[in-house]
Amino acid sequence: MSGAEGFVGIDLGGTKIRGILADGEGRILASRLEPTGAGRGSEAVFETLASIAASLVEEGRAAGRLPRSVGVGAPGPLDAERGIILVTENLPFVDFPLGPSLEARLGLPVKLDNDGCAAAMGEYLYGAGRGADPLVYVTASTGIGGGAVIGGRPLRGRGSNALEVGHMTLLPDGPACKCGNRGCAEALASGTAIAARAEEAVLAARSGGRPTSLSSCPRLGAEEVFREAGRGDAVAELIASEALAYLGICVANLATIFDPEIIVIGGGLCRSGERLFEAVRLAVRSRCSKAVSGSLRILPAGLGGDSGALGAAALGHFSPSGAKNDIAEAAH
Amino acid sequence: MSGAEGFVGIDLGGTKIRGILADGEGRILASRLEPTGAGRGSEAVFETLASIAASLVEEGRAAGRLPRSVGVGAPGPLDAERGIILVTENLPFVDFPLGPSLEARLGLPVKLDNDGCAAAMGEYLYGAGRGADPLVYVTASTGIGGGAVIGGRPLRGRGSNALEVGHMTLLPDGPACKCGNRGCAEALASGTAIAARAEEAVLAARSGGRPTSLSSCPRLGAEEVFREAGRGDAVAELIASEALAYLGICVANLATIFDPEIIVIGGGLCRSGERLFEAVRLAVRSRCSKAVSGSLRILPAGLGGDSGALGAAALGHFSPSGAKNDIAEAAH
Repeated sequence: MSGAEGFVGIDLGGTKIRGILADGEGRILASRLEPTGAGRGSEAVFETLASIAASLVEEGRAAGRLPRSVGVGAPGPLDAERGIILVTENLPFVDFPLGPSLEARLGLPVKLDNDGCAAAMGEYLYGAGRGADPLVYVTASTGIGGGAVIGGRPLRGRGSNALEVGHMTLLPDGPACKCGNRGCAEALASGTAIAARAEEAVLAARSGGRPTSLSSCPRLGAEEVFREAGRGDAVAELIASEALAYLGICVANLATIFDPEIIVIGGGLCRSGERLFEAVRLAVRSRCSKAVSGSLRILPAGLGGDSGALGAAALGHFSPSGAKNDIAEAAH
Repeated sequence: MSGAEGFVGIDLGGTKIRGILADGEGRILASRLEPTGAGRGSEAVFETLASIAASLVEEGRAAGRLPRSVGVGAPGPLDAERGIILVTENLPFVDFPLGPSLEARLGLPVKLDNDGCAAAMGEYLYGAGRGADPLVYVTASTGIGGGAVIGGRPLRGRGSNALEVGHMTLLPDGPACKCGNRGCAEALASGTAIAARAEEAVLAARSGGRPTSLSSCPRLGAEEVFREAGRGDAVAELIASEALAYLGICVANLATIFDPEIIVIGGGLCRSGERLFEAVRLAVRSRCSKAVSGSLRILPAGLGGDSGALGAAALGHFSPSGAKNDIAEAAH
């Protein structure tokens, strides 16, 4: 039977919606990638997501692998039990019943989960942290998020809003975060934060401050900051090293909390390469106890951009109440 | 049978060793409390602990409740699997095989666990957080520690060193911590940190700085600081409010990580009363997402100073591998 199973997972991001049809071993049989088009409003975004899911279900059916359920990873906060996206920073959803709406559309059970939780599960089942206990996953991208898998089970928390690691306070009076708090990891170390610092630096240079090669970049994002830092620009270097130092503190705090076997780091900022991992490992070595840091492995995501969709597919399939142990078994 | 069972738990602290003989419902049948006498060296401290444990086992035997195992909660970092205390800040133990030594002495299986983990389990099974999922426990005392119980199981981490919450970095360039890091919660909000700030303030007052009623206290600890703050001393007030603000950030970060049902706070600083809980609740409200803070309850420990010993007794009894679910069942 298991050879004929199909699993559909959707990763709903602020810029892209990724959909995957996979088999029980996490092999990708088909995939879709569409821009989210968050500016078009909630109904249009839902329409894109639903048509991706429907076409993957159809493709599974045609291949004799009819999916029995669909998993969706979405940014929180969520009411995962009722399938509702409560509110999101980069998407037009407020109290949106994504789960029930998609179930009605597809005629299949839909499991909504936190996107960080889904990606952690993807890396635990099929990626860089296969079978690790505990596994902690951190995504450093436009925002900062995460997930944890303990004893083979995803840590969801009371309302599936655990591991909002981007909103740990790392600097009590630090820069304002979109969430309303100050000094969140996301306001200090995310792609958005790096871009904001770069814009400030360019403005400062224009009004007579320290000159920077960032001033001649047509676009100002984390990629440009890391590139100009690599070329020797001192202002870009300061922005990059400060952001990575805060990302390191964020990861070190998670190490101190979970005493994990493996921390997997994914997300677009990893494109800055070994530099990011060096900074994070340095922070963990200097800030955590040796009992925690000594045996801890810090690894790049093994599934690249697919962690979330593959994990969502697995979480959609394994029922959250009864069959949790199936997930742990699947990883071994 | 269960009526005739006895459980022995030992809470090994930097200043006191507490031992308990309990029944299966967490009722205390006998208890011992001795000063640790950390200055007398590791063998003498072990001797005190072993004689407390032996006398409780004997008392259980005499009452027809022969304990089948003994649980010990000790400060980390530990190698819990092998029963070894690796190193401690306030005790004379380095690579000390406490578990095997105590087993040899008592002729009973001994389970060594992190003290925060034990206290969390005590509060989960018998205290303020009965059956909560997740439950997070924080102790604010001489140091700051903690534990978490998820789905009825204690979160131990790879090497039983999870939840060293006192060593989360809350202020990257903050005061030096004994652990070697800077800006740890423990260096900002513990009883030791408050006492250190009070001493600095008294020295500053002596050399012409801001006068404070702390200067006339024969002893300078957290208790005196909270008392003088309550009497209107502005310097003591500043020290107290800053420390509680950092404790609040520590708890808010744990809320953001675990999305817990209940956070239980124990330890000597709770004697400062409602003021501590007000500060922590304010930090959680202002720094966490509403989805997390809305339904979260933050409660004082229900077992007072007995959380650790009662939890250690339970953890010693339930084997860590096979019978984990018994613990979850016992709470319902």
